[in-house]
Amino acid sequence: HGVTAQGVSAYPSEVTVQMVANFAGGGAAINQLARVAGAKLDVIPLDLDHPTGDFTIVPAMDEQAFLAAVSAGYDAVTKDLDLVCFGEMGIGNTTPAAAISTALFGGSAEKWTGRGTGVDDAGLKRKVVAIEAGLKRHADSLSDPLKIAAALGGRELAAIFGATLAARKNNVPVLLDGFVCTAAAAPLARLHPTGLAHTIAAHVSAEAGHRRLLEALGLPPLLDLGMRLGEGSGACLAVNIVRSALECHARMASFAEAGVSEK
Amino acid sequence: HGVTAQGVSAYPSEVTVQMVANFAGGGAAINQLARVAGAKLDVIPLDLDHPTGDFTIVPAMDEQAFLAAVSAGYDAVTKDLDLVCFGEMGIGNTTPAAAISTALFGGSAEKWTGRGTGVDDAGLKRKVVAIEAGLKRHADSLSDPLKIAAALGGRELAAIFGATLAARKNNVPVLLDGFVCTAAAAPLARLHPTGLAHTIAAHVSAEAGHRRLLEALGLPPLLDLGMRLGEGSGACLAVNIVRSALECHARMASFAEAGVSEK
Repeated sequence: HGVTAQGVSAYPSEVTVQMVANFAGGGAAINQLARVAGAKLDVIPLDLDHPTGDFTIVPAMDEQAFLAAVSAGYDAVTKDLDLVCFGEMGIGNTTPAAAISTALFGGSAEKWTGRGTGVDDAGLKRKVVAIEAGLKRHADSLSDPLKIAAALGGRELAAIFGATLAARKNNVPVLLDGFVCTAAAAPLARLHPTGLAHTIAAHVSAEAGHRRLLEALGLPPLLDLGMRLGEGSGACLAVNIVRSALECHARMASFAEAGVSEK
Repeated sequence: HGVTAQGVSAYPSEVTVQMVANFAGGGAAINQLARVAGAKLDVIPLDLDHPTGDFTIVPAMDEQAFLAAVSAGYDAVTKDLDLVCFGEMGIGNTTPAAAISTALFGGSAEKWTGRGTGVDDAGLKRKVVAIEAGLKRHADSLSDPLKIAAALGGRELAAIFGATLAARKNNVPVLLDGFVCTAAAAPLARLHPTGLAHTIAAHVSAEAGHRRLLEALGLPPLLDLGMRLGEGSGACLAVNIVRSALECHARMASFAEAGVSEK
């Protein structure tokens, strides 16, 4: 994320590449959680050698870069899937998430901005200042959810947007992860009232804006465990809850079948 | 439960036997949930042909009956288990649970009494009246947590008490289920300050007294999904969350191991 130039993250942006390698090596949280969930993990690196633009100065992505990322996500969701979780890893990406949330739902940038991986008070202030600058810089784009996603977002957010759209088209239910994933998918709710009707909020994270965003979207979370890791970790943790509900729905005996007396 | 004679349940007490048969046949919710959790389900019928006494008139159990039920639970928890969930099925048993909670933690019976499987306003009032009568009838026993459990409890609650005690002794972690399970184990917290130190509250149920009881015990719940089924369903649903946490703890790479830059 180009906006990391504004000092919005506690970690250097090369950590994105390092963590993607960690996913491949099986050492990240999502590797363990996917195994317990019985889920297959696919990692899709998105042009990591080319950071997006600093949205305080230029759009994060031009139309071509935005559509390439949307397509990468869109093409990843096929009709045969029975449930998908989207995750993300991108140093600095709670700042784009807060910027998109502010642009879509209004209110002050402070209200949507949290500490991400753990910035201090000065870093939190830099995030707010960067978001305010971005909203001012791209004021002409703020009436169009797609232009918001391109100007203020990031490649992983655009890919999640595209993947959530493909899931809607293919009738694949989606477990939404934390603040970044939810903000990435949120433009769909602005583009159509049922744009997120196929999604379940897997959890509400400790990142400040997430609870507010889920409320704005009318999505009550399944889990509220103070998690704040990203990677799809919260979504993956909810997979067995959804599976449990489906197994009960599909396989429980009715009272009549089980010979149980009525009230 | 003998106290069902006071009209405290929406269902007839023969449903207890019928549901135990349903567990054996694999048609209950807990059968599906245990399978998804990768947990083994053991059902221990507790002298179902002999209802406990109506505690508004006599103790629910005399010392011999109480200790027999405690022992049945105690003997079920062996050292080789790595995690246990306790569940229960006993028509009428939210009334004993509320009675025990009132006796242990004080306050009015109304505060601890909910609708169980779904009694109407008149049934709810009968529950409160029955509990008040029981507390008055057994006033001499209320300073002793064990006598409370015998006089106001039930065989399944006594068995869960014994099983939770055995788990404490054998260092086996316990996932507590809903209101009835938590009330059954609660006397341990009164008998010793660390009596429930080996337990995790798996969920908070929709039954009115449960949230209050967990707060009194200082046990924050993992799940808050409005469940109210008993059978160990909430505990079982949390098994994969505990498993996920353990897998992350045991198998994640450190930042140094994964070659990730520090702040």
